[in-house]
This record gives sequence, structure tokens and C-alpha cells, in this order.
Amino acid sequence: MSDAPVRVTVWNENVHESTGNPASMAQDYPDGLHGTIARAVEELVPGATTRTAVLSDPEHGLTEEVLADTDVLLWWGHVAHGDVADEVVDRVQRHVLAGMGLIVLHSGHFSKILIRLLGTTCSLAWRNDGGREVVWTVATGHPIAEGVPNPFVIEQQEMYGEPFDVPAPDELVFISAFPGGEVFRSGMTYLRGRGRVFYFSPGDQDYPVYHHPDVRRVIANGVRWAHQPGLERAVPEVTHPAEGWFTRSPA
Amino acid sequence: MSDAPVRVTVWNENVHESTGNPASMAQDYPDGLHGTIARAVEELVPGATTRTAVLSDPEHGLTEEVLADTDVLLWWGHVAHGDVADEVVDRVQRHVLAGMGLIVLHSGHFSKILIRLLGTTCSLAWRNDGGREVVWTVATGHPIAEGVPNPFVIEQQEMYGEPFDVPAPDELVFISAFPGGEVFRSGMTYLRGRGRVFYFSPGDQDYPVYHHPDVRRVIANGVRWAHQPGLERAVPEVTHPAEGWFTRSPA
Amino acid sequence: MSDAPVRVTVWNENVHESTGNPASMAQDYPDGLHGTIARAVEELVPGATTRTAVLSDPEHGLTEEVLADTDVLLWWGHVAHGDVADEVVDRVQRHVLAGMGLIVLHSGHFSKILIRLLGTTCSLAWRNDGGREVVWTVATGHPIAEGVPNPFVIEQQEMYGEPFDVPAPDELVFISAFPGGEVFRSGMTYLRGRGRVFYFSPGDQDYPVYHHPDVRRVIANGVRWAHQPGLERAVPEVTHPAEGWFTRSPA
Amino acid sequence: MSDAPVRVTVWNENVHESTGNPASMAQDYPDGLHGTIARAVEELVPGATTRTAVLSDPEHGLTEEVLADTDVLLWWGHVAHGDVADEVVDRVQRHVLAGMGLIVLHSGHFSKILIRLLGTTCSLAWRNDGGREVVWTVATGHPIAEGVPNPFVIEQQEMYGEPFDVPAPDELVFISAFPGGEVFRSGMTYLRGRGRVFYFSPGDQDYPVYHHPDVRRVIANGVRWAHQPGLERAVPEVTHPAEGWFTRSPA
Repeated sequence: MSDAPVRVTVWNENVHESTGNPASMAQDYPDGLHGTIARAVEELVPGATTRTAVLSDPEHGLTEEVLADTDVLLWWGHVAHGDVADEVVDRVQRHVLAGMGLIVLHSGHFSKILIRLLGTTCSLAWRNDGGREVVWTVATGHPIAEGVPNPFVIEQQEMYGEPFDVPAPDELVFISAFPGGEVFRSGMTYLRGRGRVFYFSPGDQDYPVYHHPDVRRVIANGVRWAHQPGLERAVPEVTHPAEGWFTRSPA
Repeated sequence: MSDAPVRVTVWNENVHESTGNPASMAQDYPDGLHGTIARAVEELVPGATTRTAVLSDPEHGLTEEVLADTDVLLWWGHVAHGDVADEVVDRVQRHVLAGMGLIVLHSGHFSKILIRLLGTTCSLAWRNDGGREVVWTVATGHPIAEGVPNPFVIEQQEMYGEPFDVPAPDELVFISAFPGGEVFRSGMTYLRGRGRVFYFSPGDQDYPVYHHPDVRRVIANGVRWAHQPGLERAVPEVTHPAEGWFTRSPA
Repeated sequence: MSDAPVRVTVWNENVHESTGNPASMAQDYPDGLHGTIARAVEELVPGATTRTAVLSDPEHGLTEEVLADTDVLLWWGHVAHGDVADEVVDRVQRHVLAGMGLIVLHSGHFSKILIRLLGTTCSLAWRNDGGREVVWTVATGHPIAEGVPNPFVIEQQEMYGEPFDVPAPDELVFISAFPGGEVFRSGMTYLRGRGRVFYFSPGDQDYPVYHHPDVRRVIANGVRWAHQPGLERAVPEVTHPAEGWFTRSPA
Repeated sequence: MSDAPVRVTVWNENVHESTGNPASMAQDYPDGLHGTIARAVEELVPGATTRTAVLSDPEHGLTEEVLADTDVLLWWGHVAHGDVADEVVDRVQRHVLAGMGLIVLHSGHFSKILIRLLGTTCSLAWRNDGGREVVWTVATGHPIAEGVPNPFVIEQQEMYGEPFDVPAPDELVFISAFPGGEVFRSGMTYLRGRGRVFYFSPGDQDYPVYHHPDVRRVIANGVRWAHQPGLERAVPEVTHPAEGWFTRSPA
């Protein structure tokens, strides 16, 4: 619970940006989805420092050094999940279990790292018809929902719907509604090892969702929530202690 | 996990029936909501025996003898929650904690017994405009959802919406959507003491919801789920054991 | 997530202190259990302000004004639970549901307020033979466990053992072991309404447990965890909104 | 909730048996750990049919056909986790997510399949000094604890202790105590996809734990609990539905 500023890394596969598909990307996200998301964190989390990393970087930009210097990692991927190297996924998982925060956004539900941490298929229903998403806070009082109206409305979004094949979350924060009658558990938290994981579904390459003030606020809140400044980074390990090892010496 | 047939008591305040308001009650529920619900249980739970009890019965029909002879109690109330005697609520609570199942339906969210067991206000948002309720199973594979389509649709229903002030459930089974964009955690389970509690929101005096085949199926599934035939009815009690009391005698 | 200093009220029935039983109280807790606990909070929570309140105060010292000025309430009671007025319990419950933090200590498991919020008997097994309590953190990385060794050891304590009749907690933080082979879920969190509740079992009038540095640290961590500075105090209420009330005006 | 008899497969790496180490295996488990466990299931689960499979079988005995014919799979492994082929782990995981029950025993905490499903290291503390394990039921009333005393005592066991790096379980059923002051969450349930998973730690190659009547009862209860006879085996899949697909035809 210290006040050390949070160090954030925003990872993006950066494929829609590179291919120029959809065309709206250039207008909506001239600095890439990662750039827009990083700006949101900088603006809304006091003292936060950000860096970005993309698939095409060496080691996808997620070296041991970068992760050791990252308090919270944000993850955006969509069409290139399969191109993420397993050894990088191993490394990210190790850091999460050791205490690094992880925020997985939107189509990142199918990322290797989320599937690795949750153990399920993470499959869902989807339909991209640009309908309205209404995001309800069900865990009123949760710090991730601080400062956003209940509900908040995203005028145009891809529909993500139940059933969503994930473990029951530790905390269900948001449920979204879509015009077709679908619902979705759109904000969920999980503790894995010593690391805090937040999945937040709003956000799509086809719409300017990451410019929405409430979406930005939730992401910023998520960064603050996932940050555990007092926690030493340490992978849980098997131990083989002698009996009574924990007894204090009378000294 | 024995196969003893389940003994069910359906409780209804029976006020809408008595006052003839709404007028549709006489047509939709000629035997009262309790009669219709009891028929559903009899039809869909093999071997089940049912009785009904209403507010105007002596002790509201929930004497010690009746509760001792009840495996699962269903509760429907709406306008007369305040008329339920505290001593009857005490008794029902004691039986739930001792292992009796409890299914609270619809407007029973504001019943004394549910508030007693959950500790919160159980407040929610509501609007009775007869819109369509779409009920999604999010805990696919849960026995309470067995045999119902995902989603199932209730053509006309009162809207119940979030935020719903209840503790996070042990299991979230259903989430409902309404045409206005609202969502609701419409099926939730709680363990309290040794008793299983299921809250299920569909059902309203203004609409023939308890004739809906999927609603009836869910209620029947709930009865089977809440029934613990191998469990002795015993209120949890404070104990003051001697050291080593549990060590087996060497005989 | 603001940095407003936390305002803490420590409540104690103050009966053991008044009656001088046990005799060790005068030596172990010359300022009462409440005084010792308040000192721990002041020392370990930067900026915290504390007040104390006892059973014999008018309205038990828990007036509307005091509660409105309290971010986190700590509760210690043992022999006089029945003397706490129901209307004060109502008031405390209302503030918890509205967002006030609550930390219930040791024999407070049988307090009216905890039973009210949890809905169960809160019964347990106990034996006061002054054995060693070993407190294990199972939610490694939880802020309430920050800075304490895993495990930490309390040389002399009353035994509290399972089965403990409480709802499954939102988070299980600590499990304790006792020399007789008993175990106890000794640190558990619950969200009720908008308020955070933490039950922590170490602490007894017969032993100087509240002088133990790790116990003090956990209580201080609990205060910080239960404090939600960005949250407006508001009791959850039923609402009856018009359709589309949340739609933003195009201005 | 049908009454179809459960089809059980008991998997064992069968290495201690093959190598004759420890020597006590030949006496304690002349038919192998898998044989003894299968006998427990047959004796205590009415109508159950069992088969066994071992690491050295083709495809480790876990072909598509075997898994399709298995309602509940039990898993025992210790020294050869790394020899289990990833493609077999993939297959088992797929069946669990599709609805097959899985019971992981003792040192199976480090099996590939459990790590795959839970996403954490599953590391723990251990010490094999043959001390007494006292197993407490904390979820009184849970069907997995039906018919066993609270607590039950295993005279000689390996110590497994916290911290145990697993996600918070859906249900915590048992907590064990060991003479050195250690505690362990020894019975936990998880829903993954549509499949029910139960981890139960008692059982070790060095001691005749699987002959203990209460351990056998718990395993049998676990089989019954994990069996979902009314559930169609179906892997969760992404869907891309048209709007309104679920609306019933007026017909």
C-alpha cells in the first residue's frame, strides 16, 4: 500500500494498425490502440509511467528486463494470438504469478496468456453489428468502478455474449447488455498466484471505444487496482521446510 | 445423496389472490400462485410430495412440525412482507441453517427471511412494463439449468434490474436481459449454515410466468438441487471440546 | 483511491476492563482493549485519526454523527453482546451497507452486527488453554497480509476451531492452527452492500495479543483495506426508473 | 440428475509400483494405488463401473474412446508428471471442459492436467515425517463430506502445507492440520468449463492412506459429486449467432 508510481506496459499485437484494416483505425487510433490506451493511463493515473510493446518487437518487447520493470501489463490482441511465442507467454505468466498485474482487454479473451491463466477455452458468442453496449456495475463500491456512472453507455460496440467459458471470477464487477438481448460478464477479476488479473471486454478495433471517458476511467482504475506496490515480485515455489522452522529464536 | 423423495412446502402470502388484484390472477392462477408452483414441482420432480401454506394460516402454516417435515421450502411474497411474524422468520432461518433448502422467488427478494439470511437491503431497480425477459445461463452445466435452452425467453415480465444489493453469490447461474437495456442476476445460490438457498427472479403476479415450461423446469431443478437427503437436520452450535476429543480410542 | 486520511472508531464493550476480570487486563491493557487497538492504528496507519466508544456511552457512543464521521469501525465484544441495542445495530448495519468499513475482532464473531450481516449463527468450537496459534497466510499477496511473516506465531491464545458457521467468505486470507490439531479460518473478508467487512480472530482478553506486532500490523492493514476514500456513503435503495433514463442527452 | 450409473477411470502413473520403491507399496497396494482406489469406488458408489489406466499404456490408456466412456477420471501421479504426453493432457482437458468430472489426488497437485486447468504453479510446502493429519470439514453439509466424522484423522501422512499456489476454489471443503503446526486446504472444488474438478490431498505412496475408510468415503463422494449424468458432453465453443436467433417461432 505504498504510493510508488505505477509502471505500466501496454502491449498490442499492432496488426490492424500495420495492415490498415479496418480503415477507420488510422483515424480512430493514429498512434495505435496501444498509444491511445497508454495516453489514458498517463492522464488518469497520477504519476504513472508507460511504455508500449508490440508483437513485431524482439521477444515481442516483453523481455525479462521489461517485465521486471513493469507493475501492470495491459494486453490487446485479436488476429495474431497464435503468433505470440510460447516462451514469452511462459515469461509473462511467471511474472503474473509472482505479483505483476495484468489487464486483458476485449479480444484478448482468446490470448494465450489468458487461456493459460484461466484454464478454459475462453470462448464466447459475438456479432459485430455496432450496437449499443450498456455497462452495469454490479459490484457497487468496487474501486475498478469508481467514478463511472451506473450504467455507462458505449454507443457502438461489437457484441460479446454469454456463455463465456471462463472460471467463475473472484469478483464480478460489470455486466453488459446488448440490443439483441445478449448479456456479458464484461468486467471480472481473478487472483492468480500473487498477481491480480482484470478482464475488461469493451474495446474494439472498429470503434473509437478507447476514447470513451468511462472506458478510460475503468482502465485507469484497473491499473491502480492491479498494482501492488508493497509486494515483492516472487514466483511461488515448492518448499521443504524442517519442522518448527518458523519458531522464533528466543534470542 | 440418497434417493428419498423430496417433501416440498410452497409458501405464498396469498394476498393478490384474496383481494382479486390484479384481476388477471383469477384466470392465470385459479389455485393461487402457490397452487401453480406446487403443481410444477409435482409434475417435474419424481416422487415429490407438496403442501402449501399461506400468511393467514395459524403461524402462517409454518409450524415447527411443518418445517421439520419439509426438505425444501419455496417462498413467494410481495405486498405483505411486513406481516410475517418475526418468530416465524426465526424458525425458518433456524431450519435453513440446519439444512432445509429454501427457494425464494421474484418479489421475495424483499422478504424478511432473505434479508435475514443475506444481511443486505436486497434492493433493486424495477419497472413493470411487461417487456421480454431473456434468461441466460452463465454457469453452463449447473444442475439448476439442466434441460432449459440457453437462453430461454419469457415474453412478458416485470423488469428487475441492477444494482441488486445482495452479497456476491456462491454461484451465479442466470443473468437476465430486459428491453430497456437492463440486466439482472436472476439466478443465484447461497449456502447458509448447512442449508442451500436459491434465489430465482422470474415470476410475477401480473403475468402467467409460472406456467412457462422453462421457469417450471428451473424451479423443479432448484428443488432437487436444494434437497440434501443424506443430511441430518442440525443447527450449527458452539462447542467446547476437550483437547484430543476426536482421537480414536485404540480399543 | 484518494489519499484522504482514514477516520477510525474503535468500539469495545469495555466490560472486562470495568469488572477487573481477568485480573491480567489491568496490566495487559491499562487503557482498555480499545485503547491498545487505537494506538496500533495510530502507529501503523499514516495519518489515521482514532476515537473510541464503549457500551456504557450514550447510544453506545455510536450516534449517527459518529458513524457519519467514521471510515472504518473496529468492534470488540465478548460477554455483553445482548446488551447492544438493536437500534444501534440497525444504524451500524446501515452505515456498513452504505460504505463504512467494519473490522470484527475475536469474540465479536457472536456480535449482533456480524450475525446481522452474515445471516448465520457464527458458532464455532473454542477452548481456552493458552496454546500457540500459528497464523498462515493463504491469500499470499493480499494487502491485509502485507508485511507479516508467513506464518506468524502467537505464543498464547484461546483456541477457536472449525466448524465456524459463517458464509463462505469473499476472500480467505488466514488459516490458524492450534496445538490440539484444530484449524480455524482466522481472517476472512466479506463485501456487504458497499461496505468492506473483515473478520480477524486473534485477540483475547486473557492474553496480550493486541501487543503482538504482527497482529497489530494485520489490524492496521485491515483498516487500510476497508477504507474506501473515493466512495460516497449511500445506502443501496430500490429505484423505479423510467425506460432509457440513463441515455445521455445529445446536448 | 438422472440415476445412470457412473463410469469411472482411475489413472495412475504406476511408477512406484513398478520400481518397488518404497518397499511398503507391495504390501500396502498389491494391485497398485489405482487398484485400491478403484475398489473403493466400486464398494462405495452403487452401480459404479471402473477401469484403470497407467502411464505405460498406449496413449497412457486415455484414448478418445476411453475418455468418451468415462464420467469421472481420477488422477494419481508423483514422479513422472513430465512423462505425460502433452497431447494426452490436451485431450483430458478437452473432456473436462466438455463435462467430464476430474478428481486429482495428493501429489497430482503437480500434474500437467491440474496446472493446465488452474493456471498457477500449484506449489506447496511438504515434509514426509509420517505425522498425523487431522482433516476438518469446513463446508458442513457439502455432499463430498457426507458420512465422514468432523474431523477425521489419518494416523500417518506426508505433510502438505500452505502456501498452496492455487486459485481460490469455488468451494473449500476440507482443511487439514499437521503436528508441526502446518495447515493445508486439503479438499477444494473448481468448475472448469462444464466439468467439475475436485482436488483431495490425502494419500501417499508411503502410507496405506487409501485403505482409510473416511478417505475412501470422500473419494466415493467426490465421484458422485463430479458425475453430471444429465449433462451432454460438449466442449464450449465460440458462436457467431444472428440477432434474435433464440426467438421462438410463433408456429
